[in-house]
Amino acid sequence: MKLASLRHGRDGRLAVVSRDLKTMLPVDRLCPSLQMALDSWSTTAPRLQEVSDALNQGTASGAIAFDAAKLASPLPRAYQWCDGSAYLNHVELVRKARNAVMPPEFLHDPLMYQGGSDDFLPPTADIAVADEAYGIDFEGEVAAITGDVPMGIDAAGAAGHIRLLMLVNDVSLRNLIPGELAKGFGFFHGKPSTAFSPVAVTPDELGDAWKDAKVCRPLVTHLNGKQFGAPDAGTDMQFSLADLIAHAAKTRNLRAGCIVGSGTVSNRDASKGFSCLAEIRMIETIENGKPTTPFMKFGDHVRIEMFDGAGKSIFGAIDQTVVKYAA
Amino acid sequence: MKLASLRHGRDGRLAVVSRDLKTMLPVDRLCPSLQMALDSWSTTAPRLQEVSDALNQGTASGAIAFDAAKLASPLPRAYQWCDGSAYLNHVELVRKARNAVMPPEFLHDPLMYQGGSDDFLPPTADIAVADEAYGIDFEGEVAAITGDVPMGIDAAGAAGHIRLLMLVNDVSLRNLIPGELAKGFGFFHGKPSTAFSPVAVTPDELGDAWKDAKVCRPLVTHLNGKQFGAPDAGTDMQFSLADLIAHAAKTRNLRAGCIVGSGTVSNRDASKGFSCLAEIRMIETIENGKPTTPFMKFGDHVRIEMFDGAGKSIFGAIDQTVVKYAA
Repeated sequence: MKLASLRHGRDGRLAVVSRDLKTMLPVDRLCPSLQMALDSWSTTAPRLQEVSDALNQGTASGAIAFDAAKLASPLPRAYQWCDGSAYLNHVELVRKARNAVMPPEFLHDPLMYQGGSDDFLPPTADIAVADEAYGIDFEGEVAAITGDVPMGIDAAGAAGHIRLLMLVNDVSLRNLIPGELAKGFGFFHGKPSTAFSPVAVTPDELGDAWKDAKVCRPLVTHLNGKQFGAPDAGTDMQFSLADLIAHAAKTRNLRAGCIVGSGTVSNRDASKGFSCLAEIRMIETIENGKPTTPFMKFGDHVRIEMFDGAGKSIFGAIDQTVVKYAA
Repeated sequence: MKLASLRHGRDGRLAVVSRDLKTMLPVDRLCPSLQMALDSWSTTAPRLQEVSDALNQGTASGAIAFDAAKLASPLPRAYQWCDGSAYLNHVELVRKARNAVMPPEFLHDPLMYQGGSDDFLPPTADIAVADEAYGIDFEGEVAAITGDVPMGIDAAGAAGHIRLLMLVNDVSLRNLIPGELAKGFGFFHGKPSTAFSPVAVTPDELGDAWKDAKVCRPLVTHLNGKQFGAPDAGTDMQFSLADLIAHAAKTRNLRAGCIVGSGTVSNRDASKGFSCLAEIRMIETIENGKPTTPFMKFGDHVRIEMFDGAGKSIFGAIDQTVVKYAA
């Protein structure tokens, strides 16, 4: 099934979305919010599935036209957002651009950072940044929303706790990151509010494209209306979403509604294009000594989407414009 | 007023606690949870204050005996937990123990990391760790819970968004941290679930001990029944809680219920003792070339508390025993 949250208050109003993304049905009388559905998944999911079946069969009453602009993030706020870096091509390029090699342990020990989760951007909301000089970038990713995951679980066990999948725009302020990482405590200012796809889907909605806890479809990014990249999210993914969840749970429990991201989708085949500006800038630096593609300016627009084999959008589009922040 | 959350479900049952920590009154019929009170603070706080006044005057009906063992964390889960490092003596010692100096920019640019917030430990819960070899340590801190804080706010403005104050045990797994920080993305496994004091209090409860957004009382830590330290939380604090909130909000909004921590309370006067084992181990390393105080073992017990000028506990005690984690 496919779920979304209509913009309403702090936590949205839960809605079931039709498979074809043409209609949606508010179900807040059944369960007010997606977080509450995740909190009681074993009892609530079957009831939502019944609504989904009726909606897809055209027998549900009260459905309204699907409109991403009416939607908040599937979880407008969450209790945890942790983001891995599973596509090592991205990590290797970062290193290569500064003449360093990737440590061999990165092949079995994922990079992961803890993100802020109290104020996610709606999927079509502007990205408000105070200063273009911060180096504004998008990062297209996939992510899982988990149920309750016990500490110390292995990847095989973690796979069974994946409830929903989404796309991500992990907005990054590149020019704030080097100084921040040099301080040693990881990202903070460099990772402002994140956006997710309009719709979160259960893994079964992906059919054959859900394999070994990987989403095996191209992630299509357009920048200012031109295709920027379509790398396959199932290719060159060193760590599956299950691997990343197990990593996150090594020393603590994860609780229902925890979001675990893949990191920027990146293929070794550069002809597939890219999911962030930093990557093409690294390739330019490796090839020409310096980057030529600029970071985003106010007014620039990014669209991140994924299509099934029949060309239908699976999650709806993250569709955002960068604007100057006004206090 | 003083607020707490009785253990109940995922978010607890809100209770008002008497100033003397002798009685508490469940108020979930007025507001179910502390998060919901923070979400609607301007309307809910005055009603909670009325209950608090009645409870302190002995005119409230339905009060029960205060019992920290019945309490969850004031926020059993939160949408954000970010922890600064405001006591630079702690930072300088870390550096000195490895013959490095603290960069001068640390005097005006706070260190801060993003912590996990989906599974806080109750104040008297065991600290379950899989392996003593992880290097188990406590960190005594103070923290603020904020209301909605707009991006780009300055420290003076941030001070007005402090709703509640708590104590913290920022449990740390020291032997996992060096490898983790070397990867460059900050803490993750090294910072398992955090514990907070049984009671969260509005700043006015501190009287003269709340000065310039600092909590000016000694933070008293006992390890296995022996006093380990009582450094003053208002002394040698380079960045106030308001400074830290403004830092956290530089590139994003903070939403109601965001918790911002001070980092380990530490005074330059070592005779005051310490708020974590790492610090005495650093001093031992500086003096003798190696640490002699061990990290915590299974069965070890830590108690973190703060008293007013009359010797009364302000927040109740964080009172935890380390145990081996059983999956």
